[in-house]
Amino acid sequence: MADSPKSDLIVGVDLGGTKILAGVFNPQLKLLQTAKLSTKATRGFDAVIERIARCVQDAVDEADLSLKQVKALGIGAPGAVDTETGEVIFAPNLEWKDAPLKKELEKLLGVPVFAENDTNLCALGVHEVELKGKPRHMLGIFLGTGIGGGLILDGKLYGGFNRTAGEVGHMVIEVGGPECGCGNKGCFEALASRTAIFRQIQQAIRDGGKTVLTDMLGEDLDGMKSGDLRKAIKRGDKLVEKIVENAAEYTGIAVANLINILNPEVVVLGGGVIDALEEEMLAIIVETAFDYAMAGTTNGIEIVASKLGDLAGITGGAVLARQRLK
Amino acid sequence: MADSPKSDLIVGVDLGGTKILAGVFNPQLKLLQTAKLSTKATRGFDAVIERIARCVQDAVDEADLSLKQVKALGIGAPGAVDTETGEVIFAPNLEWKDAPLKKELEKLLGVPVFAENDTNLCALGVHEVELKGKPRHMLGIFLGTGIGGGLILDGKLYGGFNRTAGEVGHMVIEVGGPECGCGNKGCFEALASRTAIFRQIQQAIRDGGKTVLTDMLGEDLDGMKSGDLRKAIKRGDKLVEKIVENAAEYTGIAVANLINILNPEVVVLGGGVIDALEEEMLAIIVETAFDYAMAGTTNGIEIVASKLGDLAGITGGAVLARQRLK
Repeated sequence: MADSPKSDLIVGVDLGGTKILAGVFNPQLKLLQTAKLSTKATRGFDAVIERIARCVQDAVDEADLSLKQVKALGIGAPGAVDTETGEVIFAPNLEWKDAPLKKELEKLLGVPVFAENDTNLCALGVHEVELKGKPRHMLGIFLGTGIGGGLILDGKLYGGFNRTAGEVGHMVIEVGGPECGCGNKGCFEALASRTAIFRQIQQAIRDGGKTVLTDMLGEDLDGMKSGDLRKAIKRGDKLVEKIVENAAEYTGIAVANLINILNPEVVVLGGGVIDALEEEMLAIIVETAFDYAMAGTTNGIEIVASKLGDLAGITGGAVLARQRLK
Repeated sequence: MADSPKSDLIVGVDLGGTKILAGVFNPQLKLLQTAKLSTKATRGFDAVIERIARCVQDAVDEADLSLKQVKALGIGAPGAVDTETGEVIFAPNLEWKDAPLKKELEKLLGVPVFAENDTNLCALGVHEVELKGKPRHMLGIFLGTGIGGGLILDGKLYGGFNRTAGEVGHMVIEVGGPECGCGNKGCFEALASRTAIFRQIQQAIRDGGKTVLTDMLGEDLDGMKSGDLRKAIKRGDKLVEKIVENAAEYTGIAVANLINILNPEVVVLGGGVIDALEEEMLAIIVETAFDYAMAGTTNGIEIVASKLGDLAGITGGAVLARQRLK
């Protein structure tokens, strides 16, 4: 308790469709402790709020600290968030609509809560902590089950008119391409997310393709993770290598589109797919993006992978809470 | 001369690959007079600068005004512009590279000159004059020979790191699609610009399609303009109608992508294609965009056609000059 005698701790929470991650940070945004719980979204809104509160308490308690020492909490939710009211307008993975996240969580925890879209928070965390707030314009793209993004423009998180900006995953880059969960065809997410990569691998197997993944995981590829793809590629699996390369090329084209539109100084890639497959994908993404982007637009632009991994969301949550308290 | 005894006039110039348009504005940005000259880009940089100066003098003189009454000039160039130095970094249609537009034009005219990318200026003119500066976030998309755009974010023209933001025409929306002038395939510009529409019509004729355009213009469609397409559609030409509808659908998808990414309050469409074919295209663009954009992103968003037509560029030039003088 000697480290933080005052009420100056900050908590960041990453609320996902399957898990809740909470982190306790000191005022300098050093991460002191994390805790994790499954979301259990099917149990409904009240149960999830209670689980978030419990996860926060677990993290605080594990660090031998007290909730009374927490000054504010920032939380990212997987959907559209009204950042003023802290309501989750729409979060399909949680089946939430107009859910009073801030209000109910403040009731349970007695701490000021600030909410944002999850990938916006990831971008904010990467920008403020990993890149020390330096790039004036930064674009974060996070490849996981789906693909989301966050825009830092003129040094600030940019939300647009309805605070929904940064939905880069649903940029159509191949009209008539594979179906996306959103109902459209050819979205970036339908071509390069983990879901898209797994679907292509399963299709290739049905088409008679051979992959070591079936030796590793069985014919149904039960429980396949992004890391399994890396292992397969390291073992010389050409089928998986080709599909991952294709996803990297599509990602490069999406990055080029975004460089043409927004001309950021830094493009940061993150999310589970990049965390697991950076070595296999990043060089192809960078080469394709620089090849496709208009001449003159890429001078001095960097395309990098985030090192924050799973911690980007909670880090961004802490940054948000600190910013909003000021 | 009684109207403007002081040196408070502002001049806007739209420098295109084929023509120069200059406009004289009063301090309230009322357009007093325009003048037009062909660019004659093949004669080289010095000749074009001399022609711009002459076009400005023509406009001023035609309004019975004097260059001495001009306080500042804003000019848009078709390429990447360093807005600090007023150099045109790269303008392929003019074959200019690192061309000191501001410096040389100031020498000839003795008036402060401010330069910007041409479609950025169009967006600025539409935002400030047509929409009275109201939307906080606005996206301008201009469909002509090529397709360009301009972003007004947080009330200001957004340029990004290299001041090249807004290159929406080279957003790939159909990987592997038709070749674009930029060397890529499937760019928005290669699917919905006047060049793309004309190419598709010519291809359809080669494939045996029938169109009244060949009656109107001859087999080679010499001198075909966007307005000819409207006339053909009005005369019941199904071939032209279908191709224009396709271009409108691609435009709607591009608009949806940009709504997903940037969530502007207003999307303004302009340029020669829209000016001529608004009636045929706008409803399809709006319907497609709202259909493709993510749920929740389009609440309250407007997609409209600009009424400024050819005058958007010079209007934006005047706005820029007035802003930069402040």
